[in-house]
Amino acid sequence: MDTPDLQTLRFSAGRDRVEVLDQTRLPRECATVSLASAEDAVRAIRTMQVRGAPLIGATAAFGLALALKHDGSDRGLAAAHALLLASRPTAVNLRWALDRVHDRVSALPSSERARAAWSEAEKIAAEDVAANRALGEHGLHIVETLSALHGRPVQILTHCNAGALATLGWGTATAPIYLAQEAGIALHVWVSETRPRLQGAKLTAWELGRRGVPHTLIVDAAGAALMRQRRVDLVLVGADRVTRNGDVCNKIGTYEKALAASDNDVPMYAAVPSATIDWNLATGDEVPIEERDGAEVLEPGGEPIAPPGTAAANPAFDITPGRLLTGLITERGICAATSAGLAALFPERSHG
Amino acid sequence: MDTPDLQTLRFSAGRDRVEVLDQTRLPRECATVSLASAEDAVRAIRTMQVRGAPLIGATAAFGLALALKHDGSDRGLAAAHALLLASRPTAVNLRWALDRVHDRVSALPSSERARAAWSEAEKIAAEDVAANRALGEHGLHIVETLSALHGRPVQILTHCNAGALATLGWGTATAPIYLAQEAGIALHVWVSETRPRLQGAKLTAWELGRRGVPHTLIVDAAGAALMRQRRVDLVLVGADRVTRNGDVCNKIGTYEKALAASDNDVPMYAAVPSATIDWNLATGDEVPIEERDGAEVLEPGGEPIAPPGTAAANPAFDITPGRLLTGLITERGICAATSAGLAALFPERSHG
Repeated sequence: MDTPDLQTLRFSAGRDRVEVLDQTRLPRECATVSLASAEDAVRAIRTMQVRGAPLIGATAAFGLALALKHDGSDRGLAAAHALLLASRPTAVNLRWALDRVHDRVSALPSSERARAAWSEAEKIAAEDVAANRALGEHGLHIVETLSALHGRPVQILTHCNAGALATLGWGTATAPIYLAQEAGIALHVWVSETRPRLQGAKLTAWELGRRGVPHTLIVDAAGAALMRQRRVDLVLVGADRVTRNGDVCNKIGTYEKALAASDNDVPMYAAVPSATIDWNLATGDEVPIEERDGAEVLEPGGEPIAPPGTAAANPAFDITPGRLLTGLITERGICAATSAGLAALFPERSHG
Repeated sequence: MDTPDLQTLRFSAGRDRVEVLDQTRLPRECATVSLASAEDAVRAIRTMQVRGAPLIGATAAFGLALALKHDGSDRGLAAAHALLLASRPTAVNLRWALDRVHDRVSALPSSERARAAWSEAEKIAAEDVAANRALGEHGLHIVETLSALHGRPVQILTHCNAGALATLGWGTATAPIYLAQEAGIALHVWVSETRPRLQGAKLTAWELGRRGVPHTLIVDAAGAALMRQRRVDLVLVGADRVTRNGDVCNKIGTYEKALAASDNDVPMYAAVPSATIDWNLATGDEVPIEERDGAEVLEPGGEPIAPPGTAAANPAFDITPGRLLTGLITERGICAATSAGLAALFPERSHG
C-alpha cells in the first residue's frame, strides 16, 4: 500500500504554486490555501496553517523555489532564504530544507535556479514520505512486540500532532501506528490535547478518526496518571529538533511525558526522520525555543479564560533529555537517544 | 491582621441558610448562591459552585445541619450524611467533616441535633481559617529562606486553586504566599491553568490579582520546562487527600509537577490542614479517583474542540508518591511526606 490519501501539500504541474491543507480550520473544515510566493509560504508557516517539522521544511523548500521564479539572482536567493528561515525558529527541518535547496542551486546560472529548486523541493517531499514509511516499519516491531507481550490492544500515548498532518505522508509518531493497524494489530491511542493550540484534540483525533484508529482524548496533565495506573504501554512522539547527544526538542509537555514514562518504566520513543537531527548542536540546551503570543493561552476559542490583564507565558517547545527516552526511531533503524546511538546509525555524520 | 476579606461561605445568623460564592461564574462575576438544604449543598458541591477540599468539607457540614432542621431523626441523620457523602468521592475533608458533625450530634435528642450540628459546622469553618493561617506561618519560613538564598523575587509555581477560594480563608498553598507578601518578600507566582476546568486561570489568577500578587499564567504542560530552565524556586500545591504514608492525591497534573520538581531539585510541598489527612488509607493507590464528564475535556467554553464523536477520559485527580515531595506543610509544622514524618507531627494518630 502507498502513502495514506491525506494530502497536506500538493504541488502544481505548472510549478507555480502549492496547495496546502489549512490546518487552522481543522477539524471543522478541510480547506486548502494556495501559496504562490515565499511570502505566502512564510505566512502559512507563521500562522500555523502548515505546521509540523517535516511539513514546514518541505513548504519552505517550495517557497524558496517560488521566490526564485521571480528573482533568481544571488541576492534574491539570499533574501528568500533569510525570509523563510525566520518564519519559525525551533524546527531544524526548516533550515535543513532551505540549505539543501540553496546548496543545490547556488552554483547554477540564475535562469536555471527556479527549476532546479522546484525539483529539489519535490525530492524533499518524496523523501519525507519514504523516510516516514521506513521509520514506521522499524517502529512497527516495537508495537508487535508489545502486542505479543500483553495479548490485548496495545495502549499508545501520543502528544501534539506528529501525524500525517505534520508531514508529507504517514506521519512520524503515527507511522508505526498506521502500519500496525494495517497489520491487524489491535491498539488504542491516548491523545493528549496539547494546550495551548490543541493540536492533539483538533488534528490527531481527526486523523486517527479518519483512519478508524480507536482513540481517547485526555488533558495534557492526565498522561502521567495513566502511566502510573499502567494504562499506557508505549509513548510515541515526534520531534522538532534532535541534537547530537539525543536530546529531543518537541512540543511543550513532551518532557513531562518522558519523566512519567521513565518513572513508570513505560517505553517512550521519539520518531524522527534524519532531517530532524541537528548535527551542529551538542545538546538540547542550545535549541532556540519559540515563545508564542500569550493570547494562545489566554483566549482559547477567542474567549478569555482569565481575568482581564492577566499576563501569560507561552513557550511552544521543551527539551527532553535523551536519558529519559528508550530510544529514537529513524528511517535507518532504532537507536539509543545518545551520541553513540546516533553515531552508530549515522556514521557519516559523527565527528572525529 | 485577620483573614482576607474574600468570603467563600457566609452563614446566616438565623441558622437557616449559607451563602456561597458561585465559583463557576468567576472570574466574570462575583455572585452568591443560597443553600437552605442538604440537597442544595449537594448540588453546589457536585456542580463545583463550591470546590476545594476544605470548603467542600465545611459546606457539607452546614448541609447536614440544614437537613437536621427538617428531620432530626436517626433516619434523617443517616440519610443526609449518606446523601452529602456521595456528592464527590475524592476529597477526604468531606467525610471528615460529615463524620465530625454526625458524631457530635448522634447521642443527642432529635430536637437538639440541628442546633448542635450548626455550631459544629461553625467550628469547622473557624478551625479551617486558623489551620491555614498556621500552616501559612510554617510555609512562610520556606519562602523567606529562598528569598534570602536567591536575593531576587521568589518564583513559586502552583497548580489548580488551593487558594482562599478553596477554603474558608487564606487558602492552603496560597497561605505562605499571602503571608510572604504581607512580610514584604518579593515573589512571583506561575499559575498553571489546570485543564479541563481551568481553576488556575479562572480562580487562582483572579484571587492573586485581587491581592496584588504578581503572577503569570501558563499551560499545564509548561511547568516542567520552566523548572528545567531554573525559573521556578518552589512548587506549592494543596491536596484533596493525603494518605498515612505521605502520598498526595490532588488535582490531575500534580504528579507531573512533582516528577519535574524532583528531576530538577526544585523543592515542592503540599500544604495540607490535618483534616485532609486520611489516616485510614495506607497509600495513595487506595484513594477513589473521581472520573468526571468527558464534556469538560471536549467542550471548554461550550464549543467542541475535537471532531464530533471523539471519546474523552477525564480523571479529576492523580496520586503523587510522597517520595517525590520535599515535604508536607501542616498547621502543626512541616514534615517529610512519609509515614514517619506524619507520625512525628501527629503522634495521637499513628497506629501501634
